[in-house]
Amino acid sequence: MLKVQSSKSEDTICALATAPGGALGVIRVSGPQSLEILSHVFTKNLAQAQPNTIHYGHIKDGPEIIDEVLVSIFRAPYSYTGEDSAEISCHGSHYILNKVLELLIQNGCRMANPGEYTQRAFLNGKMDLSQAEAVADLIASGNKATHQLAMSQLRGGVSNKLAQLREQLLHLTSLLELELDFSDHEDLEFADRFELKELANNIDKHITRLAHSFETGQAIKQGIPVAIIGKTNVGKSTLLNRLLHEDRAIVSDVHGTTRDTIEDSIDLQGVTFRFIDTAGIRQTTDEVEKIGIERTYAAMEKARIILWMVDEEPSQKELNKISLYTENKKLIILRNKIDKKENKAFTLVKIPLIAISAKHGTNIDALESAIYEAADIPTLTDTDIIVTNARHYDALTRAHDHIQRVINGLQHQLSGDLLSEDLRQAIDTLSEITGSQITPNEVLGNIFKNFCVGK
Amino acid sequence: MLKVQSSKSEDTICALATAPGGALGVIRVSGPQSLEILSHVFTKNLAQAQPNTIHYGHIKDGPEIIDEVLVSIFRAPYSYTGEDSAEISCHGSHYILNKVLELLIQNGCRMANPGEYTQRAFLNGKMDLSQAEAVADLIASGNKATHQLAMSQLRGGVSNKLAQLREQLLHLTSLLELELDFSDHEDLEFADRFELKELANNIDKHITRLAHSFETGQAIKQGIPVAIIGKTNVGKSTLLNRLLHEDRAIVSDVHGTTRDTIEDSIDLQGVTFRFIDTAGIRQTTDEVEKIGIERTYAAMEKARIILWMVDEEPSQKELNKISLYTENKKLIILRNKIDKKENKAFTLVKIPLIAISAKHGTNIDALESAIYEAADIPTLTDTDIIVTNARHYDALTRAHDHIQRVINGLQHQLSGDLLSEDLRQAIDTLSEITGSQITPNEVLGNIFKNFCVGK
Repeated sequence: MLKVQSSKSEDTICALATAPGGALGVIRVSGPQSLEILSHVFTKNLAQAQPNTIHYGHIKDGPEIIDEVLVSIFRAPYSYTGEDSAEISCHGSHYILNKVLELLIQNGCRMANPGEYTQRAFLNGKMDLSQAEAVADLIASGNKATHQLAMSQLRGGVSNKLAQLREQLLHLTSLLELELDFSDHEDLEFADRFELKELANNIDKHITRLAHSFETGQAIKQGIPVAIIGKTNVGKSTLLNRLLHEDRAIVSDVHGTTRDTIEDSIDLQGVTFRFIDTAGIRQTTDEVEKIGIERTYAAMEKARIILWMVDEEPSQKELNKISLYTENKKLIILRNKIDKKENKAFTLVKIPLIAISAKHGTNIDALESAIYEAADIPTLTDTDIIVTNARHYDALTRAHDHIQRVINGLQHQLSGDLLSEDLRQAIDTLSEITGSQITPNEVLGNIFKNFCVGK
Repeated sequence: MLKVQSSKSEDTICALATAPGGALGVIRVSGPQSLEILSHVFTKNLAQAQPNTIHYGHIKDGPEIIDEVLVSIFRAPYSYTGEDSAEISCHGSHYILNKVLELLIQNGCRMANPGEYTQRAFLNGKMDLSQAEAVADLIASGNKATHQLAMSQLRGGVSNKLAQLREQLLHLTSLLELELDFSDHEDLEFADRFELKELANNIDKHITRLAHSFETGQAIKQGIPVAIIGKTNVGKSTLLNRLLHEDRAIVSDVHGTTRDTIEDSIDLQGVTFRFIDTAGIRQTTDEVEKIGIERTYAAMEKARIILWMVDEEPSQKELNKISLYTENKKLIILRNKIDKKENKAFTLVKIPLIAISAKHGTNIDALESAIYEAADIPTLTDTDIIVTNARHYDALTRAHDHIQRVINGLQHQLSGDLLSEDLRQAIDTLSEITGSQITPNEVLGNIFKNFCVGK
């Protein structure tokens, strides 16, 4: 169970929850006075309205009808915020939406702060902090992969994993306390230090795996960075155009909008791949410079995947050189211009090699599959949890440090009471992520300030 | 009662009803299969769901959860369209909204055309055509005046007025028919031709008044055009800046949006006044050219209100000249620079005169009141109907022509059967406005094509 913080939500808040400009606009009201305030501006008294019912009527400013609306009623605790609340579905005119908000405020509401509905949901125990953060990620998600990560987190993926780890840490703590309490009873058997260390190591392995997943999480969230390198005229621009032209974006446009254009990125199987600008490569006679590595060093640094485009077999020297820059990265060698007549097979190359013709579009499908595979995205339906949030990553890293100290302590036969402090801190640090301990207002402020108003 | 046209809405349609980009997005589904289709993608079977109830659950694509949503259920005929329908309140992510629409379409919906929900509401007798048109106006309304016009029309203002007029025309018709049927019974008394003419004149007076109100309606809808004229350096720009700076726009911004900027316009008491560019005035020695009339002729042509700014008393010749251009317009003489020391009272001027200092902002309030009064906006809470729609204006003009022919015919003792054709056409023409006769698909197409999708 979540620990409910003092929510202090005596205020009743209101905000536009939809983007302005549509046929409909939805205004959200939440807080103890919701139905009373609404009854002052609505044609019907809603004070006794049944939960989860919809009511047709007018929003009125004295005798003047502002709009014909539908009001949806939600009752505490069975609402998003956990409070009494309502949603007013208005015609989407700016005048109407402003006027309705104005009337609500005149009758006792105040404008909601960014993310305040979700913050209240958290404070009222409707979701934990990592789930609250997932709400913002879900709204921002633009493709299948980011959507799945956010949905998994919203559905409690991160929370459940952390609950397991806390459970194990508490178990470890209780074993240590047992050792302390009964250390003078020599006839009792305790888990020996070796076993305790095994336990701690196992917990740390999971925490480290979670922390490491952040890199993948970030890459998915921001798009997997890909660098296309190679000497001038090898066909980089042609390839890029070909890949962009073949954009398999699964998101078809909602009528009347274009989604934010992310230049030079493609969606492959629901994951965004972002091409890093590798401008600056020039023709040169220098053997190493020729392959264009030096000048694209920065791009390669930032990339997870490197497409090295060649039209003749790289020398061993070139291969050695490039391997210096591609540690911890996926390197794909692209042999371009296979449509040209001379087509000797490469012999040296041991790195994955794909033969294409950027110009004629030959084998681009195979290249796309190779790019997707190189990204090494875990199957997202897995029970594996991927951390996407920098705050979580930070907490995991600190928890890891504490547990490392515990492991060291166990190794060096430190007494249990010295170890338990680090254990406690490891537990608290994990608790920060879900907010299952009291979360300082400052932290809450930082989390919710980037939400949109109305969520 | 409205005549229900064959609606043929066997299709179940879906569309995003809110603008994309908010915390929430609402997808509308309407048509006979609404609840069945929805049940295929929702965690709960909604086929037996009670009307006006809200249901929490997941939209699923096979095993994959697309979103946690609230579904509102409406049942024919008590819905906006008059059909079974539902609104899905989703998280406002593009990915989610597209995916949900995609799933609905896969399960048998088709994307709605612009205005198709409102068109169905009309076809199912939920509103007449003038009310349907008011829906689009209401959504587009940006200030109190346009809002009130649209709301009055939506609430049946235009429809009721036209119903009265049709009633009177039918009465006139029946009197004429009575005359025809019993014209050989010399002992029967009929309404005499003079009385019939009186009746027709009275009806025509109302129709003409309605048609004339279109000018006001258009001005309110598009902003009342105001021209500020006067010689160079008299202070026109200073005044304009002062008026714009003091913009009393009653519409405060919804957080996160700025309303469309209408350059050089101000809202006074909920009505938009649009300043027409009068650039091109230059210093000259010519007596008449000096007052800048010739060069601003075009601007004056387009204006309803003319602010003639002077810093010395106009000559009688200038006054005569300007009166040529200001027939049917409101002219306000603005005496600027009253802060200057020489301040002889004007003696000649009979036209409303306001003394201001644009530079120091003196008397700007009085000027604003004068501008608002000059616009001569009828009190909008009146039962007076203002026509805002060009289609209505066109029909009213044609109805007026038919009735004029009836009046002429009565004057020249034409026989009743010759008159009744024009009377019938007058009635049909008025019926076009509310669509109370069968409306050709072409007309419907024209009306609804400018709606947004989702309404």
